Amino acid sequence: MAEKITPRTTNYPQWYLDIVKEAGLADNSDVRGCMVIKPTGYAIWEKMQRALDGLFKATGHVNAYFPLFIPKSFFQKEEQMAEGFAKECAVVTHYRLRSVGGKIEVDPAAKLDEELIVRPTTETIIWRTYKDWIQSYRDLPLLINQWANVVRWEMRTRLFLRTSEFLWQEGHTAHASAQEAEEETKKMVDVYRQFAEEWMAMPVLVGPKSEGQKFPGAVYTLCIEAMMQDGKALQAGTSHFLGQNFAKAFDVTFKNEQNKEEFAWATSWGVSTRLIGGLIMTHSDDNGLVVPPRLAPLHVVIVPLGRNDAERGPSIAAAEKLAGELKALPRDEFFGYEPITVKIDRMFDKQPGFRYAEYELRGVPVRVEIGPKDIEKSACAVARRDVPGKEGKQFGIPLAGAAVHVDTVLRDIQKSLFSRAKTMRDSRIVTAETIEEFKQLFPTKGEDEADTDLGTLKFVYAHWDITRETEDRVQKEYKATIRCLPFDGPQESGTCLFSGKASPRRVVFARAY
Amino acid sequence: MAEKITPRTTNYPQWYLDIVKEAGLADNSDVRGCMVIKPTGYAIWEKMQRALDGLFKATGHVNAYFPLFIPKSFFQKEEQMAEGFAKECAVVTHYRLRSVGGKIEVDPAAKLDEELIVRPTTETIIWRTYKDWIQSYRDLPLLINQWANVVRWEMRTRLFLRTSEFLWQEGHTAHASAQEAEEETKKMVDVYRQFAEEWMAMPVLVGPKSEGQKFPGAVYTLCIEAMMQDGKALQAGTSHFLGQNFAKAFDVTFKNEQNKEEFAWATSWGVSTRLIGGLIMTHSDDNGLVVPPRLAPLHVVIVPLGRNDAERGPSIAAAEKLAGELKALPRDEFFGYEPITVKIDRMFDKQPGFRYAEYELRGVPVRVEIGPKDIEKSACAVARRDVPGKEGKQFGIPLAGAAVHVDTVLRDIQKSLFSRAKTMRDSRIVTAETIEEFKQLFPTKGEDEADTDLGTLKFVYAHWDITRETEDRVQKEYKATIRCLPFDGPQESGTCLFSGKASPRRVVFARAY
Repeated sequence: MAEKITPRTTNYPQWYLDIVKEAGLADNSDVRGCMVIKPTGYAIWEKMQRALDGLFKATGHVNAYFPLFIPKSFFQKEEQMAEGFAKECAVVTHYRLRSVGGKIEVDPAAKLDEELIVRPTTETIIWRTYKDWIQSYRDLPLLINQWANVVRWEMRTRLFLRTSEFLWQEGHTAHASAQEAEEETKKMVDVYRQFAEEWMAMPVLVGPKSEGQKFPGAVYTLCIEAMMQDGKALQAGTSHFLGQNFAKAFDVTFKNEQNKEEFAWATSWGVSTRLIGGLIMTHSDDNGLVVPPRLAPLHVVIVPLGRNDAERGPSIAAAEKLAGELKALPRDEFFGYEPITVKIDRMFDKQPGFRYAEYELRGVPVRVEIGPKDIEKSACAVARRDVPGKEGKQFGIPLAGAAVHVDTVLRDIQKSLFSRAKTMRDSRIVTAETIEEFKQLFPTKGEDEADTDLGTLKFVYAHWDITRETEDRVQKEYKATIRCLPFDGPQESGTCLFSGKASPRRVVFARAY
Repeated sequence: MAEKITPRTTNYPQWYLDIVKEAGLADNSDVRGCMVIKPTGYAIWEKMQRALDGLFKATGHVNAYFPLFIPKSFFQKEEQMAEGFAKECAVVTHYRLRSVGGKIEVDPAAKLDEELIVRPTTETIIWRTYKDWIQSYRDLPLLINQWANVVRWEMRTRLFLRTSEFLWQEGHTAHASAQEAEEETKKMVDVYRQFAEEWMAMPVLVGPKSEGQKFPGAVYTLCIEAMMQDGKALQAGTSHFLGQNFAKAFDVTFKNEQNKEEFAWATSWGVSTRLIGGLIMTHSDDNGLVVPPRLAPLHVVIVPLGRNDAERGPSIAAAEKLAGELKALPRDEFFGYEPITVKIDRMFDKQPGFRYAEYELRGVPVRVEIGPKDIEKSACAVARRDVPGKEGKQFGIPLAGAAVHVDTVLRDIQKSLFSRAKTMRDSRIVTAETIEEFKQLFPTKGEDEADTDLGTLKFVYAHWDITRETEDRVQKEYKATIRCLPFDGPQESGTCLFSGKASPRRVVFARAY
């Protein structure tokens, strides 16, 4: 067990922060609520971006870029459309600094006529732009995505999971019919499911949000919802069917095939750097970070061993040969058509155990050890990160076929991580038939204590009367929210646990990040 | 000649805006000075990013991400370091909106204690962070790059060339010695040269900036400088040796190998979406956009022809077969290990000439035409965008080998564009030996008129006394600035044209964007 990392059972939130810090993923900054994403954390984000971008493009989307700032008046339209939009925003009021006697101050003469808001999301300015781009059904659909930073002023922040500035992608599509827009909404939540499961190795529930949890500007919201190792839910991605709300707010009409003016139909969908938090909390352990190979910045570390230069020489030569062979493996879809990345560790002044622990901490999926005894047998040892310690180490792998073997192990780790996470999650999805059962599943004893209950929190299927009132009451009393109405969950009707009224189906309650 | 495009000789600035608009590259937005980068423009930027990012990583750099906001007090440190930093910045003063009687307003209670500035560049916050990351020489060098948006409030904007918000990358490195930092400064300007020449097919001069043109926080600035078709210069990339200025401002020291505390040495270097403006003005013509194949979002359009379905059928079948063969060509470095991108045009309701013009306008490097007569001969016609019209079209290319042929043509276009641009530029680099010659080369007759002098403006080598005073005077009198002291320019000494004082070498003057 790595000494730098607080065990999960001791203090789960601290374990998370230890991983983020010790694996070099992110730091807090001097700017309240804004994080610095460090090279390793950013490299994971780049891999996520590359994979998602490929999935977006394969489904016909293109990227574009819209302004960082939104005129205040645009928020007025949003407010009229639906109350309850987030208003915790960074507001730009001036456009110049000046130096007075060597002291920097805001120039009061440079006050903006209309304040500009740093985008918390970009629907408004995009739909204002679409007004110019859309005239006829021939201009539709518009299938556009943006990679961008957004700002939502947060009082309580946690690295990756909730920060005032974060990075994300936001898709904004316009369609000629409700049906097509609804198909798009569904298609994109399925792209997110595919990404979560096939790249992040993170199983998710997929389905609509309840009224209380949807995006206020949406007709409905579909989501992917994941379970973290503490049993809490993480909303990992959302896809909104926006109806004609934004088209009406920004007067975006098109001539349909019958030459009649209609308002366009909209969707939007997004995932963010929050996914990195989800990745950490799905797979990592008390030894450090665990990253699925498809998203790992570094796939393989080779650790040559030897007590002196004479012993190290052949180990290093073998390591370099193997590194070359690994990098030369044919590029394929699994690794995003990029070469396998390999590092040779040269910390010979440290004990082997220290060197192994270092790369376990950083989440490198495969470690190859080559020492004098291996060289004698033209072999090496291959350790897999998903099974730390000796249990995950295979000895006597012939160097001749080691590159292909490592490639196979990497692919197997990806599969194993998913199936392990799915087994964990599935074992903790339960049904509450009575209010007493529900109470036991969501004991209340102060938020901080509940946080440390690793393994006791669950996803709970329960009947609900579909009213906002009941939803709000459950949230208040049990700190549990409706996470999702899973498409493939049980569909039979029953009686609401909380109100005794009729319930059309069970929904999933959980504590959530 | 495309009717949508104003010819260059008629009105060069309008020609530029027509290309940006008609090729679908960018739009102005409702937010003053901020642009919307449209899908085609953004796709070019993505290609640029991918190529540059590959070059950065090949030279040992990694990416990270730092906050959008900079506390005002950080600017105070910069001001103390060197006066004259740009102060046209977006200033955030509040963090909440509120709704009062359905009307949105800034919440006066949510005033920040210290104003936050939207980053115009990120040196300050990065060096504040490096203070935490650097303790020992073992932590050095730090070789970090950031892809980000930045904001500099601009009064006169022009799409891509000068906008209040723009996208860029900024490298920020920290080193244990001045020599190493200077080598980095040089290495990165050479990476820019390589990218400009090998990817953008845009020849550049490389060398230091004069004192009046360097970044105020730098000890010196190296640049790449390109010539646009109107003879104006475009600063296309800069690499700064920052000495210990930022380390001193933010107290970033390290223990050197002798265990003594030293301030770290710094560089920074950046290129921006301005490069898209440079790309347009280097290659495009009166028919529309011209994009070098290595940066083209779409490489090949295949236009099947036929007067009726019976004729079109075989043309479409041949087009689809060829498209498949093109996409299946082995991926290699030239196309960034991505498949060649191909579109089959199906605008059968339009005349062939219209369809050809459409793709010339949009800058698709190669157009393949397949009509009934071609089908009879199992052949096709291949038209190259760099030579518009019939001159650039080859008939009777056998369909059997067409994919390989098109691939060869794409590579040839890349080379031809560079050599054409270089020939153009070299023919317009001249030397002025007297002040009279200089005056003739930079006639002053109002800025707008000068703008339309396509082909008359030149890069002018002239002797200069290396004083800031003379530099400022020339800028004022001739609207010409010192662009660069090219490394490979003539090095002999002489007499300053403007002051009669001694000049160590000739420098390049030009009008500039």
